Amino acid sequence: MDSIKIFAPASVANVGCGYDTIGFAITGLGDEITVTKRGDDQLIVKEIIGAELPLEADQNVCTIGIKAMLEHLNIKTGFDITIKKLFKPGSGLGSSASSAAGGVFAVNELLGSPLSKEHLLEFALEGEAFASKCYHSDNVGPSLLGGFQVIRSYEPLDIFKVNVPEALQVLIIFPDVVIKTAESKALIPKTLDIKTARDQWSNVAGLVHALHTEDYTLLKKSIVDYVAEPVRSGMIPGYQEVKSIAFNRDSVGFNISGSGPSMFALFTDLVSMEKAEKEISELYQSKGLNLILHRAKLNTEGCQVID
Amino acid sequence: MDSIKIFAPASVANVGCGYDTIGFAITGLGDEITVTKRGDDQLIVKEIIGAELPLEADQNVCTIGIKAMLEHLNIKTGFDITIKKLFKPGSGLGSSASSAAGGVFAVNELLGSPLSKEHLLEFALEGEAFASKCYHSDNVGPSLLGGFQVIRSYEPLDIFKVNVPEALQVLIIFPDVVIKTAESKALIPKTLDIKTARDQWSNVAGLVHALHTEDYTLLKKSIVDYVAEPVRSGMIPGYQEVKSIAFNRDSVGFNISGSGPSMFALFTDLVSMEKAEKEISELYQSKGLNLILHRAKLNTEGCQVID
Repeated sequence: MDSIKIFAPASVANVGCGYDTIGFAITGLGDEITVTKRGDDQLIVKEIIGAELPLEADQNVCTIGIKAMLEHLNIKTGFDITIKKLFKPGSGLGSSASSAAGGVFAVNELLGSPLSKEHLLEFALEGEAFASKCYHSDNVGPSLLGGFQVIRSYEPLDIFKVNVPEALQVLIIFPDVVIKTAESKALIPKTLDIKTARDQWSNVAGLVHALHTEDYTLLKKSIVDYVAEPVRSGMIPGYQEVKSIAFNRDSVGFNISGSGPSMFALFTDLVSMEKAEKEISELYQSKGLNLILHRAKLNTEGCQVID
Repeated sequence: MDSIKIFAPASVANVGCGYDTIGFAITGLGDEITVTKRGDDQLIVKEIIGAELPLEADQNVCTIGIKAMLEHLNIKTGFDITIKKLFKPGSGLGSSASSAAGGVFAVNELLGSPLSKEHLLEFALEGEAFASKCYHSDNVGPSLLGGFQVIRSYEPLDIFKVNVPEALQVLIIFPDVVIKTAESKALIPKTLDIKTARDQWSNVAGLVHALHTEDYTLLKKSIVDYVAEPVRSGMIPGYQEVKSIAFNRDSVGFNISGSGPSMFALFTDLVSMEKAEKEISELYQSKGLNLILHRAKLNTEGCQVID
């Protein structure tokens, strides 16, 4: 096998209370990455479809991760890489994480899986760290491994998966404005008072417990954020109105996806979700703003071979 | 029925990562409280056995809680109260919480349970707040309701119970030194940097997940504290040595109980726990310090009628 095509899903990071620690992968959006063996040892990004991103191997999240992995394995093989992005970078759905995770996954598969999927995480993170200027794996983890992931520790890296009720459906609401991650990151407070921190980790406990017990009332109450939402939601047009619509339509969890501008709304009932979709569409129409809505389920696979 | 005797268990608060939000009740230690109806509307603490604590109704955690509850119910009945403390106040096992929880529970039972056990929490907290000069319910919640409890929110009060693996056993290690709660409280940092806070809530997620999945490796890794242990452990003689013994003997979770000086060590294996007990005893003997060891299981009942 000289060539492989994989899918690396988009993901929702933070999930309200879990700033920098919790994320989940979603179906339908992500990167399609094709990797082909070369005769030499070069890593060449041939084309990126759907986004303007650097092609240079030392500037591209995908190749930076692959390079770190190949060095670890002491393998000199080169690869041509084509990335097709099914969603925009800067939307808050972990675009760079999809590329970083997908790249190492594709090459590892093509090499006959010398590394476990879990082991790939550290190399994918190298790529993601380049893009976001800091290590945070709450997008990379879910994109690579699928499902609902918690980063328990960064040093050493330790991540675990929480099983999620089958009924959960995700509505992604993407108002087409650009929020630069660096700018959004700068808004985050550097310190928290102890009571705020305590309230945040109480909700994290509630979130994990709610998923285990399928307690949607607790889930909704726990997906509350005292860290990022207060400072970031103001940058997202219509945020409070969308939130109100979602909760009026029985959403069981709503917040900003990653650093925004995308928002996520969890539902257990399709009819309610459709009503919310309609009302959110009308809201943005009335504001004269572009909007992309995307219905998803949790992607439980993470990166997978598609060809 | 004019008289009732109840048992209100001792409890371990914080549980490592869950500062001010997580606690569990234990078997064998606690308050025995006898409440007897009077002909008038007075609340009289007749006797406190096992500790020197104020008998005045407006200075006693037990009667303060009862008074708040009776006012809510608009009931003018008076009660005589006798409290027998099976463990010392100031040991870090929620002594005031046991009295506060047990008082309201006993009177509510004697009145024919006009309030649910969950509803009693707010009145028990009134008592506890008087003793500790602030609202924190990670002792009162477990003592009243039993099991492993998480305070998801203080305002409004919202608490949930996490089921705990049957195999878990608790060793309480109480070096007989006095640590004043106020002094211990003053050591807690008023703010946390965002990364420390994040590491703390990642461990909270790990702790809750580990209990649900009976993953003891994760449990041990998650019962780690960046808030209280770093500043409080220095006040507890032998802390680091006890911790080393516990982990050498396969403890699946170790930390300070509440504000100390008691420590808790979780085990799944009785033989290991016995070995740890022996080595810890020898350690304190060699230091010439008093020590009380107490073996317990999680108390899943909370307050209960015993007579």
